[in-house]
Amino acid sequence: MNVRGRHYRTIWPKPGDDRVIELIDQRFLPHQFVIEEVGTVAEMAAAIREMHVRGAGLIGAAAGYGMYLATLESDDLGAAAEQLKATRPTAVNLAWAIDRQLKGIEPARSAEERQRVAFQTAREIADEDAEHCRRIGEHGLALIRKLSAGKSGEPVNILTHCNAGWLAFVDYGSATSPIYAAHDAGIPVHVWVDETRPRSQGSKLTAWELGEHGVPHTVIADNAGGHLMQRGKVDAVMVGTDRTTYTGDVANKIGTYLKALAAKDNAVPFYVALTSSSFDWNIRDGLEEIPIEERGSEEVNYAVGLHEGRQVEVRVTPENSPAANFGFDVTPRQLVTGLITERGICEANEESILALFPEHRSS
Amino acid sequence: MNVRGRHYRTIWPKPGDDRVIELIDQRFLPHQFVIEEVGTVAEMAAAIREMHVRGAGLIGAAAGYGMYLATLESDDLGAAAEQLKATRPTAVNLAWAIDRQLKGIEPARSAEERQRVAFQTAREIADEDAEHCRRIGEHGLALIRKLSAGKSGEPVNILTHCNAGWLAFVDYGSATSPIYAAHDAGIPVHVWVDETRPRSQGSKLTAWELGEHGVPHTVIADNAGGHLMQRGKVDAVMVGTDRTTYTGDVANKIGTYLKALAAKDNAVPFYVALTSSSFDWNIRDGLEEIPIEERGSEEVNYAVGLHEGRQVEVRVTPENSPAANFGFDVTPRQLVTGLITERGICEANEESILALFPEHRSS
Repeated sequence: MNVRGRHYRTIWPKPGDDRVIELIDQRFLPHQFVIEEVGTVAEMAAAIREMHVRGAGLIGAAAGYGMYLATLESDDLGAAAEQLKATRPTAVNLAWAIDRQLKGIEPARSAEERQRVAFQTAREIADEDAEHCRRIGEHGLALIRKLSAGKSGEPVNILTHCNAGWLAFVDYGSATSPIYAAHDAGIPVHVWVDETRPRSQGSKLTAWELGEHGVPHTVIADNAGGHLMQRGKVDAVMVGTDRTTYTGDVANKIGTYLKALAAKDNAVPFYVALTSSSFDWNIRDGLEEIPIEERGSEEVNYAVGLHEGRQVEVRVTPENSPAANFGFDVTPRQLVTGLITERGICEANEESILALFPEHRSS
Repeated sequence: MNVRGRHYRTIWPKPGDDRVIELIDQRFLPHQFVIEEVGTVAEMAAAIREMHVRGAGLIGAAAGYGMYLATLESDDLGAAAEQLKATRPTAVNLAWAIDRQLKGIEPARSAEERQRVAFQTAREIADEDAEHCRRIGEHGLALIRKLSAGKSGEPVNILTHCNAGWLAFVDYGSATSPIYAAHDAGIPVHVWVDETRPRSQGSKLTAWELGEHGVPHTVIADNAGGHLMQRGKVDAVMVGTDRTTYTGDVANKIGTYLKALAAKDNAVPFYVALTSSSFDWNIRDGLEEIPIEERGSEEVNYAVGLHEGRQVEVRVTPENSPAANFGFDVTPRQLVTGLITERGICEANEESILALFPEHRSS
């Protein structure tokens, strides 16, 4: 999507030097647009772990390029794979991309061939991600068009949580892709952007990318969505996911479950947009089986923002108060109206998901 | 309760000069403990509006003292009453305290008598608030004792939202009063403290007052409570209220409704603690009839905290992103397990509430 009128992806090989990967370092958004050069597996692992890059699709793409960097460093790809997999325990795209690389590289007979195959696979992972997100936009557009038909020209109000925007993928985004598609098609849309503490990906990333693309939006505290739904001010909720079971349970940024409950209570449709790389085809029970990442307490104890032109941290809790920081929660399938995938929209249950993705039926 | 080992209330007449009211200016907590002197109605109105003082009981007490200050300034108490009532539209204690003052002052025949009566009434409002909160603690203690019986010595985990602590009242607090009572009785308790964006009263006030009293607690993002309940890590939710209808609908800090939904979904008891001054005896339907305050967008656009020893604001949203800031939401009675009042615990419905407060039955 566009940044200051110029098209960007979130990650790409450096023009003229394929041994270096460039990516948008999202830690400085929305106040500063920083591009980082990454040349080693260790740097890519740090970029994922410390969330220079984050989001389901982008983590997969970064891991794909990370494995390519690994082929430049050593013949022992197992260690690199482990190092990359350990960075973020909840995101399923991470292992998916790494395993795809390992499988693709396996038949290669020389270091050179490994490098060539890994580079090609990394680009494919990124290109597929962008293309899948584009298709999610097409399918979701039909939903928004329907919602708009009942609004007599008033904007369709969509609430989203965290950032499932193009910054979380290679391009387009998952939850935002239908929104961009609707906006570009001239359908009036307005987005309620959950701040998404503690890291405030909503305030910092979603608001920024919607603003750069000209989509009307309003930032709200994470606490506000239920009230807005009670008052009829939300026509649909659209969120992304870090991992969705083949039975339809959705792991996403902490707080998603609360919005799903409010949507159910107020008969607001609750959609989860995902590329199929975010499905976990092995897990039946999301609540029992999806590991939930616990992050450092400093993210809760501090808020980060711009003060006198500099990005600074401010302490919001008393010096001695402990804090806990759970990264994700699981929204049970019963609360999900539908899953918007690159192949179309399905219900959040095993039968409907496997009807769209029959190649994952167990024999 | 105690601050650095010394007992404080949140508001009191200045010792040796009854024409001045002293109060804790909560805008600087938890990092700085500031006492403000208030000598005029305009100053008291500003202190309420700009939230030097906030919280159901404390707003009532401040309004009571504000009306006393009005008697020192002028014979026209109507203007002062209007000025004070306009400061916070959702809090029912405000009008309750002001009307109680006006009624008490009415028969007085001289300026001197008005001042004497108003001072006496203001002190009564404050003393009653503290006493009612103390009794809420006694009634709530029985609930926590029961929860503790099933925990084999493990702490009872209570989740609270915003600050319904002693800082929101004159002393003890509403939601915190049972917690302090249990802690003082040697029952192990642990409190999950919701940050409560955008003003972060949980991080800044509840965490601070629990810490000063030595109650174990952990600050969490507002997004985390649902996840904790899903995982069995919350034994009860206890919150306060800014206004509760006589039918049991509960207006409280924005986000309370989301926690009530999660509590229901996970069979966690959801209690609302309130002094009877927070009942609205005129409103039947909370969702339809309680006005919801909208505050300035800067509270969402910025976070306030300590940086290099100074309290500063940091911008968390893009420069051009609009924000909306709804102060409260309404939790429908169906989601409330019980109301803990100074007279005992009742269900959140008209019959049960009026059985405890029969003097409010309409004839």
